[in-house]
Amino acid sequence: MQLSSDPQGGVLSRAGDAASLGRLRQRVEDHADALVAAFYDALLADEEARSFLHHSVVQERLSPSLRRWLVDLFAPGADLAGAAFAARQQKIGEVHARIKIPMHLVMAGAAVLKGRLADALASDPAAFDLLRLAGERIDHALRLMSQSYEKGASNRARLDEAYRLFSLDQDIHFERESQRAGLMEWSQKTLFRILASGGVEGAGALSASPFGLWIRHRADFLFDGSPHLTRLNAAMERIDAELLPRFTPGAASSDLAGPLEALEAAVDEVAFLLNEMFQGLAGMEGGRDPLTRALNRRFLSSILSREIGFANANHTPLSVLLLDVDHFKRINDTHGHPIGDEVLRQVAEAVTENVRPSDFVFRYGGEEFLIVLVETSLRQAATIAERMRQALATKAITASGLEPFHVTVSIGAAEHGGHPDENYLVKEADDALYRAKQNGRNRVEIA
Amino acid sequence: MQLSSDPQGGVLSRAGDAASLGRLRQRVEDHADALVAAFYDALLADEEARSFLHHSVVQERLSPSLRRWLVDLFAPGADLAGAAFAARQQKIGEVHARIKIPMHLVMAGAAVLKGRLADALASDPAAFDLLRLAGERIDHALRLMSQSYEKGASNRARLDEAYRLFSLDQDIHFERESQRAGLMEWSQKTLFRILASGGVEGAGALSASPFGLWIRHRADFLFDGSPHLTRLNAAMERIDAELLPRFTPGAASSDLAGPLEALEAAVDEVAFLLNEMFQGLAGMEGGRDPLTRALNRRFLSSILSREIGFANANHTPLSVLLLDVDHFKRINDTHGHPIGDEVLRQVAEAVTENVRPSDFVFRYGGEEFLIVLVETSLRQAATIAERMRQALATKAITASGLEPFHVTVSIGAAEHGGHPDENYLVKEADDALYRAKQNGRNRVEIA
Repeated sequence: MQLSSDPQGGVLSRAGDAASLGRLRQRVEDHADALVAAFYDALLADEEARSFLHHSVVQERLSPSLRRWLVDLFAPGADLAGAAFAARQQKIGEVHARIKIPMHLVMAGAAVLKGRLADALASDPAAFDLLRLAGERIDHALRLMSQSYEKGASNRARLDEAYRLFSLDQDIHFERESQRAGLMEWSQKTLFRILASGGVEGAGALSASPFGLWIRHRADFLFDGSPHLTRLNAAMERIDAELLPRFTPGAASSDLAGPLEALEAAVDEVAFLLNEMFQGLAGMEGGRDPLTRALNRRFLSSILSREIGFANANHTPLSVLLLDVDHFKRINDTHGHPIGDEVLRQVAEAVTENVRPSDFVFRYGGEEFLIVLVETSLRQAATIAERMRQALATKAITASGLEPFHVTVSIGAAEHGGHPDENYLVKEADDALYRAKQNGRNRVEIA
Repeated sequence: MQLSSDPQGGVLSRAGDAASLGRLRQRVEDHADALVAAFYDALLADEEARSFLHHSVVQERLSPSLRRWLVDLFAPGADLAGAAFAARQQKIGEVHARIKIPMHLVMAGAAVLKGRLADALASDPAAFDLLRLAGERIDHALRLMSQSYEKGASNRARLDEAYRLFSLDQDIHFERESQRAGLMEWSQKTLFRILASGGVEGAGALSASPFGLWIRHRADFLFDGSPHLTRLNAAMERIDAELLPRFTPGAASSDLAGPLEALEAAVDEVAFLLNEMFQGLAGMEGGRDPLTRALNRRFLSSILSREIGFANANHTPLSVLLLDVDHFKRINDTHGHPIGDEVLRQVAEAVTENVRPSDFVFRYGGEEFLIVLVETSLRQAATIAERMRQALATKAITASGLEPFHVTVSIGAAEHGGHPDENYLVKEADDALYRAKQNGRNRVEIA
């Protein structure tokens, strides 16, 4: 956004006022050390920031950089609309994305800077102009930083996800057995030590064993945010910090019974949690619903927001259907879940047969499907929905042990009307579906 | 970050001054319409923003929301440190992430708001205080927005990537044949029309055919940013806009020769580009280097930055080795590339045998490998590197048609010293590797 050339009087309107700028620069230089210190005091008071910023790095590297940045921002010759200035700010944004200093923390630090600077300027006769000028320049730099930060952070998130999916794609069964073996190997080595001497010297902590290192450095990618992993880490920590120290060399074997029982229980818990986590991986990551082969709802937002962008950019229509199987609960209750599943499978089949290869069919809820119809007006969408409704009403559902039977569906249709939020479009289709249900089911309503 | 409770005099220090706040609110209300208009004028002047913001949506929905937000920001009872205020700003950030209004555009709009507001305040006797107060409040809201925006945008990027990889994972060969058939089907249908009447009425545009819709709505996920896709879209557009209109009903068959030749060439180009893009997919997305089975370098940043975060948070050591095969070019030149490949494969094997399951081995460059050693000090890293060097120096490389021979490697080792930028650590290992080369090769140097 070229705000500096905004014909209506741009953001950098005061940038050319050399006298104010010189004065401001003097103030900034006078207070630079205090300003920089206040910035990093505020950042290091934050838990999130502390996790990646060492005091020593702040002292040696970051503080001098921030000081230079600040003074240069008000340099007399600085061309804030120029390419060199933009490149410098964007480079900072890139680095922040790489080292994961989130933009909102930088903004928090900048707010501290502005506050301190305002204090320093308050008594100046031209305080208002100087404050305005300072704010404009700092904001301009932050905006440029943010632009490249967003890009960098998004690339990083994509790569993280790609690596996580890649890890999932490895031979999971092999990995499970290999880690189970690692745990048992540590355990039996530790037991041999205890049996030999009563103590555990030389056996080493579980968290430092190959198993422990794998858990600490590989498992969090694989089991991203699993509560089991938190419990496993806690159990491992308890083994190392509490249970192992109970074994002392030369202890009588009668004294070992209690500690051994506690250790066995803790190792069993680790093994159990490990197994649970691996079990949880199976099938979890499918892009399609395994039952109906419809797309997994988690991709809805990616696809719909992209299609909304396409429709806005190309001025093409876009519609959404929300389809619900009528009285599905009754089918489930009467015939049982396996028959209910069969109904869903055959409904999904009929839906898919009635759309084009460029459309998208999602399993949206238990018995709900959401269909994204690209380059399709509301009128065309209603026609397609009606075709689907009829196809289903006349299709005989076959399931083993039952006579062929029929199910009906209700459908709500809505067309994208320019609103950039995809939830809005889905809500409109949902409202139409609600009316179809209210008006007697087995029918199509449009938004 | 709880800046509002910052004991050193926080960012919201002036928030309690009721008189200033009332006065500021009055100013904002007086100018609210103009401020809001200036904000959206600036946004809609930006090409990026225009692609997702319709004028009608701005008029009907966004402008009234912004007006309310702005006035509420200076409401006398507003508790900016309170949970309700934060929740509201964070909600806005979430929506922006969903509808892809990047934070830097919001910051650009806010800069326009501040500029206009400053103009309106300039003549006020308390202009300095009011400007400071306005800036503080707007910045505070932006920071809260940014916090949830970053989270939302990162989740969205992860999902987009997951969907892209899922698309790649589908049956690519089936998809290729299916789209090739779609193109040919359109082409032959169009030719039948031309042969029957000389014109193409009823055949429809290629871009509106099932093939065209697939290209427009599926291909960009699959072939993310491929230059072939840009060319294919251009060819498709040319067919629809230039070539088809040349066919007019009742034209003499002699007049058809030129247009037919052009159409055939264009369809051939589309088919060629489609095929090229599908070819390009094969093997491109591997997480591992197909030759050496080492990790693909594109995951280095994800892994190393995560390990640096782990080391900082847990105060554990972390080291990196950079290993280069000595005189590799000579091997390639003397024996040819297949032998060179065999050397790389066997070097990678020896490297992998000398690390633990929790370490990471990357193919870093042509004949370079980068090894991330978790929870490993520089001293331990040097020992591991020396073991690798010896293992390789004594290992006989076997390749068909050649006597077993030996290769040596040079290794640079570096330990993470607290700097949050992973590039810094890699650079240190690289410098050490350079010294190992300078000092005669077949040796380990530490940073």
